Amino acid sequence: MTEIPPPECYELLASRSVGRIAFVVDGAPSVVPVNHTVDGEDIVFRTSPHSELGRSMVQGPVAFQVDDFDDFSQTGWSVLVQGTVHYDDSDEVSPENPPRPWVEGVRGLLVRVQPRLVTGRRLIGV
Amino acid sequence: MTEIPPPECYELLASRSVGRIAFVVDGAPSVVPVNHTVDGEDIVFRTSPHSELGRSMVQGPVAFQVDDFDDFSQTGWSVLVQGTVHYDDSDEVSPENPPRPWVEGVRGLLVRVQPRLVTGRRLIGV
Repeated sequence: MTEIPPPECYELLASRSVGRIAFVVDGAPSVVPVNHTVDGEDIVFRTSPHSELGRSMVQGPVAFQVDDFDDFSQTGWSVLVQGTVHYDDSDEVSPENPPRPWVEGVRGLLVRVQPRLVTGRRLIGV
Repeated sequence: MTEIPPPECYELLASRSVGRIAFVVDGAPSVVPVNHTVDGEDIVFRTSPHSELGRSMVQGPVAFQVDDFDDFSQTGWSVLVQGTVHYDDSDEVSPENPPRPWVEGVRGLLVRVQPRLVTGRRLIGV
């Protein structure tokens, strides 16, 4: 198991079209896959104001995670962004590289995860 | 987006060799991939007492998540187990289907996630 340096963590974050947002509602964690992009140092994605995250508008710390594993070689990597979350429901805000949700329907809330800590680990086969 | 009934959620949980445990330390969520198995209704995996989860021995609610997505067809599924966590550091306890960590080294802590709620969603291409 080796640490992945932050610049490579960002390359890996940008290489995946699906990541997972983890947030805490009433003390309990929830994990939901989303289609994200990287916007500067932030992770951005869209959700509906009626989704679990949209409804609760969590203001505390969140985490964003991507990974990739290969069963055959038993290798892979995981990157974790820990930070805070910000919401924007105006249609005027659009990051340079806008997220493109696979799910149909209006997703009027732009969610931005601002990193406090970005860490990654790679599991190399023996 | 369609709901996945709980029996199929369990089939999907058992179909993957890597899942993600989400837990809360000092109010902030963390997400770590682990090699799990399904033991009855529980999710079990091994960790080191020196890992982030092992060190903090979180007693509150946790979540366990598996998913699979296909970039080309823009389809996939996600299953989320929300429940409580229990630890066993005796060598005597072994589930029928013991987890087999890919990472080398002693992982003396058996972690058991007991579900309160199991939900799943499938994203079908258009």
